[in-house]
Amino acid sequence: MTTPFNLKWGILATGGISHKFTKDILAPPSARNVADVSHTLVAVASSSSIDKAHAFIKDVEPELKTAQFQTGPVKPYGSYADLLKDKEVQIVYIGSPHSDHYLTALAALKAGKHVLCEKAFTLNAAQTEHLCKFAKSQKLFLMEAQWTRFFPNILQLQSLINSPNAPFGHIYRAFADFSIHVPANAQHRLYDPKQGGGALLDLGVYPILWMFILFYRHPDNALTPPTVTASVVNTPVTGVDEQDIVVLKWDKLGMQTTCSTSLVGRTEGSALIVYGEKGNILVPPPLSRPSSYTVHMHGEKPVKHELDIPGQGMHWEADFSARSIAKGELENAIMPHEESVQIMKVMDEVRKIGGVHYGELEDVVA
Amino acid sequence: MTTPFNLKWGILATGGISHKFTKDILAPPSARNVADVSHTLVAVASSSSIDKAHAFIKDVEPELKTAQFQTGPVKPYGSYADLLKDKEVQIVYIGSPHSDHYLTALAALKAGKHVLCEKAFTLNAAQTEHLCKFAKSQKLFLMEAQWTRFFPNILQLQSLINSPNAPFGHIYRAFADFSIHVPANAQHRLYDPKQGGGALLDLGVYPILWMFILFYRHPDNALTPPTVTASVVNTPVTGVDEQDIVVLKWDKLGMQTTCSTSLVGRTEGSALIVYGEKGNILVPPPLSRPSSYTVHMHGEKPVKHELDIPGQGMHWEADFSARSIAKGELENAIMPHEESVQIMKVMDEVRKIGGVHYGELEDVVA
Repeated sequence: MTTPFNLKWGILATGGISHKFTKDILAPPSARNVADVSHTLVAVASSSSIDKAHAFIKDVEPELKTAQFQTGPVKPYGSYADLLKDKEVQIVYIGSPHSDHYLTALAALKAGKHVLCEKAFTLNAAQTEHLCKFAKSQKLFLMEAQWTRFFPNILQLQSLINSPNAPFGHIYRAFADFSIHVPANAQHRLYDPKQGGGALLDLGVYPILWMFILFYRHPDNALTPPTVTASVVNTPVTGVDEQDIVVLKWDKLGMQTTCSTSLVGRTEGSALIVYGEKGNILVPPPLSRPSSYTVHMHGEKPVKHELDIPGQGMHWEADFSARSIAKGELENAIMPHEESVQIMKVMDEVRKIGGVHYGELEDVVA
Repeated sequence: MTTPFNLKWGILATGGISHKFTKDILAPPSARNVADVSHTLVAVASSSSIDKAHAFIKDVEPELKTAQFQTGPVKPYGSYADLLKDKEVQIVYIGSPHSDHYLTALAALKAGKHVLCEKAFTLNAAQTEHLCKFAKSQKLFLMEAQWTRFFPNILQLQSLINSPNAPFGHIYRAFADFSIHVPANAQHRLYDPKQGGGALLDLGVYPILWMFILFYRHPDNALTPPTVTASVVNTPVTGVDEQDIVVLKWDKLGMQTTCSTSLVGRTEGSALIVYGEKGNILVPPPLSRPSSYTVHMHGEKPVKHELDIPGQGMHWEADFSARSIAKGELENAIMPHEESVQIMKVMDEVRKIGGVHYGELEDVVA
């Protein structure tokens, strides 16, 4: 057995999503049958206080103790800038609010670090485009952390739908929903425009990315971006979108996909239904973490494909990041830059229709 | 017991829908607990041949024999004009293709007949508006045959949703679908633009009318028409819409409703789901003939309300037509002119987006 390629991580921001990601990369890769790559946690930074970084490290102590590839203690930092100076850090994971992603990713790239940045990637497509261009100019790996895309069952489903032998016949439509009830509160991140609040960037991005997973790279679509129509309900509290219905029309496929999201509601029944002439695919909620999908061919018994997800399931994107970096790739084929840009463009269009603006941070591009 | 008000019908067009309607009005009203109105079939006309009218009458012979209020034999006519001259006919039921509705209804009104005309009412809103205005000027009853609206369970559901004590909390969205697979065929009525073909007027009208049933007259909506966004897939065969997704946004209710329809697909699962903060309403397909609805309050056992539908269920609209005419009303409060116009306006907008035109018959208004 050859030694796995080991990737050394710095974690930027100490919120919930960073916790889940960190615990996932500290889990033994063998538990998910991975032997070619491994991960080491080098440092953690809070943007506001070193105490938060200390607390975060203390929180993940159990995972650190059992981690297979940990080479030493984790360094806490009280600012992102300090962590970015750490020569041992090869790649940073950015788990801060959306409004923070662009400038943080840019700083990390400027410091010579590879970057895996949470979805939604930035506040708009222009920022995403600039990040991607800059990363390439610096010969650094950059990827949007669309973790759901890297699930083994999703990759399977994607290749099934994109296969010329797909059994569903003409796929004529699909519906996807990601909705979670978050009581209206002007102080909450999800209701704050300055933090990229609203349903779209946080929840709505999932149904949209699912449609891209399934149809954007379909051989008949030939990477043609969908036509976007949207209907937006703005919250009376702060004006951000509390609910969106986005219809993506894929002209070359002769089909439509409906993406809905809500901060008022909650997903009921299937979170995704793909309607083919000969059968359907159903995915239960939540769309972010699909633990199964069911293929239901008309007149046949439904066949459920279940996936055992160790942890949260964010290690798979980390593994693929490591593989790309090991090979010297600047982007990963599963989540390439171009697709992040297209998804951000869809969201730009939805927001234009809904009149949602995130304030001055959105105008920063450079 | 007082004698019921009896309404004397002439049937225009001898297709499938006229058969169902005629059999329904010949059924004993007592079977649906109706005692105040009754119906008599006076005459049937085919626009092309008296033989078709003969055949139609022969087909409904069993129902004629058992009909409680039939006063004599039914007269066959080989043209609509001939039937319209029949002094015994008080009201005509128009069951011809959409493209025919406008001129046929206009001719009937000019002949002094009350009119019940199948949905979709006409090819566009301008035609509907003109019909309604003309009927009023002639002091004649006119109604679009949105038969689904008159089902007792729908009236119950409508009043439940419109009640200030509705148990669902804020209703934040609703999805409705009416899709039937009709193999593509340029000769088929549903694919022929000149006959008002496409999914919209025939099938798509149901999800749209359902949303109007539930929300247009909601006290907080105050008869405000919804904002329309739509995505249309045109069939390569003839260019009419083979699939539509129509999002209606009800600004005053802070909610969105999605209406989908397809000639490629078929409705799967519930045909309608109304999402409230505290519970949902589910209606099984087909939306045209809702035999039950289920109220599912979160955390409680779902409660199914079933309806025993005698026949097709088109007699209820006939009963309400009779009640209006008995009272001298020119329109019925359950399906008033204004709402037919608004629904046609929604469909005009969808077609504008989809670039669907039905040819020269659409331009006839006068």
